[in-house]
Amino acid sequence: MEVGNRNLFKMNDRIIKPTLLIDENRCKNNIRKMSEKAKANNCIFRPHFKTHQSIEIGNWFKEEGVYAITVSSLEMAEYFSKDWKDITVAFPCNILEINSINNLASKIKLNLIVESIEVVDFLENNVTSPIQLWIKVDVGYNRTGIDYREIDSIQKLANQIQKGKKISLLGLLAHSGHTYSCSNISEIERIHKESVQHLIEIKNKLILPTFIKLSIGDTPSCSTQNDFSMVDEIRPGNFVFYDLTQFSIGSNKIEDIALTVACPIVSIHKSRNEIVIYGGGIHFSKDRITHPDYGIIFGLVVEKKENTWGKPIDGFYVSSLSQEHGILKCPENLLKTYNIGDIIYILPVHSCMTAKSFKEYLFIDSQHKISRF
Amino acid sequence: MEVGNRNLFKMNDRIIKPTLLIDENRCKNNIRKMSEKAKANNCIFRPHFKTHQSIEIGNWFKEEGVYAITVSSLEMAEYFSKDWKDITVAFPCNILEINSINNLASKIKLNLIVESIEVVDFLENNVTSPIQLWIKVDVGYNRTGIDYREIDSIQKLANQIQKGKKISLLGLLAHSGHTYSCSNISEIERIHKESVQHLIEIKNKLILPTFIKLSIGDTPSCSTQNDFSMVDEIRPGNFVFYDLTQFSIGSNKIEDIALTVACPIVSIHKSRNEIVIYGGGIHFSKDRITHPDYGIIFGLVVEKKENTWGKPIDGFYVSSLSQEHGILKCPENLLKTYNIGDIIYILPVHSCMTAKSFKEYLFIDSQHKISRF
Repeated sequence: MEVGNRNLFKMNDRIIKPTLLIDENRCKNNIRKMSEKAKANNCIFRPHFKTHQSIEIGNWFKEEGVYAITVSSLEMAEYFSKDWKDITVAFPCNILEINSINNLASKIKLNLIVESIEVVDFLENNVTSPIQLWIKVDVGYNRTGIDYREIDSIQKLANQIQKGKKISLLGLLAHSGHTYSCSNISEIERIHKESVQHLIEIKNKLILPTFIKLSIGDTPSCSTQNDFSMVDEIRPGNFVFYDLTQFSIGSNKIEDIALTVACPIVSIHKSRNEIVIYGGGIHFSKDRITHPDYGIIFGLVVEKKENTWGKPIDGFYVSSLSQEHGILKCPENLLKTYNIGDIIYILPVHSCMTAKSFKEYLFIDSQHKISRF
Repeated sequence: MEVGNRNLFKMNDRIIKPTLLIDENRCKNNIRKMSEKAKANNCIFRPHFKTHQSIEIGNWFKEEGVYAITVSSLEMAEYFSKDWKDITVAFPCNILEINSINNLASKIKLNLIVESIEVVDFLENNVTSPIQLWIKVDVGYNRTGIDYREIDSIQKLANQIQKGKKISLLGLLAHSGHTYSCSNISEIERIHKESVQHLIEIKNKLILPTFIKLSIGDTPSCSTQNDFSMVDEIRPGNFVFYDLTQFSIGSNKIEDIALTVACPIVSIHKSRNEIVIYGGGIHFSKDRITHPDYGIIFGLVVEKKENTWGKPIDGFYVSSLSQEHGILKCPENLLKTYNIGDIIYILPVHSCMTAKSFKEYLFIDSQHKISRF
């Protein structure tokens, strides 16, 4: 099939609409590096699977010896429960889903997050199989959890859990999500050290009959820091793919990003150096970052390479998104080399939300496809 | 099932996680009003179905005599093609999907959008059934289309289409998406009048052997303006549900919004007057608006009523979203009346993107469920 003298389907002959591309080598490399860091620190690597939500990518973690995972919903726990028998749902326990909780807890080791006496009492009165609880501690992100300074509240909650017969206390869990607002590694280091210090202080002050664990897990800390010797487990998720947000924080090199979205060009506007792609908010989500040169962007265009992709192309980026449309700004000298029907590769701003928009991944080298939750 | 002295499942006994609620009466009322406006102007009402993407809601349009629709992708056209035999895909034609185009055109009257000679030639050379083409005119939104001042380019494209044997020219199509940046009705009126005037001028200047039509369709113009006598069809979409974005523009009254998201409370933080809900970016998308009093918001909490919902509650809004979490700011005096496990109703910022995040609608009165594309 030809347009002018170009063979449209010579390259990327399977890509005809927005497609989520994965680079298996980069992805496995990201997994291996994080796994090695956990091993070096002698802590459990309990990766957050909300980023990839794929049974097959999950298996790559098993190759690294991973046996326990984190998810963000009971539905996701259900999806992974066939393959994984130790799952933490890292979201404040939603008591309305007690039937799912009981169903899961009858099949696997289910670990939930609590932060109030009310929920602990509800669980003790309503669970039908043993479940393990993490107390969520707010170490400064101010989203969920008990403030790290409220030792009394944490002690009371721990006591209430200890009284339970069907519930038991695993330990203290924190998510230093405020590292996402950092712009350099020394800021991340400060937050990481403070967070761990807060958890250790609480642990030392609590009066408990049993040993408890400490769990942390944001991708910026886990990617940039090396000392996790004082915690028992790490739960990073985004690192499996990384993205432009993590890159802007300093979590990864641009070549570590293991995901792009391939999008067809549907229109070219030379008068304003713009390319319109089929690929919009329903594919990328509307997460944005501020680029030092381009202002607010929704993605960066990268070079196409055989079986992978290369660096971002200078001055070529997604400047806006509507539902199905993406508008790209393109350098004038490059614009003339593109045609309608060409496929463009775009690094996403937020890989978790972008991957969530697609039903499957296409391997860039093998053309193999895998599905996701 | 009880928490303290509250019966958790007395109200909303089917809602245990983020759920898309539809108010059938409001929705049908929105459809009826727009249909009557089209009839009063003697123009075709070709609603954009990308907002609801539901066969059953589509049937409510049939009750109003609607026989032709607009969609935003060939996949969506395929989904609706069992029930609708005249479909416009209001997105720049993606030539890579020629197989879908030919499949659809063999079954229904398929209308596509073009703006370049390249695509017109491709279609003439590759389509296997007749298709009808709209020339996209850029009337000032600057997203897609040929600039309305480039009469020569439009004439050339029209000539090229006229030469075709399998393709034919329907007319000129515009989308005044710049009305979404308006903050009052007089601004919308100015853009609407200018857009229609641009199309009429082009139509008058073009030298063509056949009569052509004019099609417009943004929801702000179609909702606030009354004179469509100079165009042949209107294609609004969002009006079926409306949302906070349209409300902030002036397109609808707050009580016209026909969609809310019901979300469980999973945590309450009295120290900062915050409620955490199960309901995040994967449910609402991350569209935002600036509220005059609250700054950037992602939704407004409304009163719960029997079989429907009421007005927004003063000072109660979604202040931030992460993947599954929503953080609500709540007035201090109200906060004490809410408990973990309660269900909160939230008006969305962007109903198209929010509805797209769910697989089904739950009718708020009848508890009936319908699926979507």
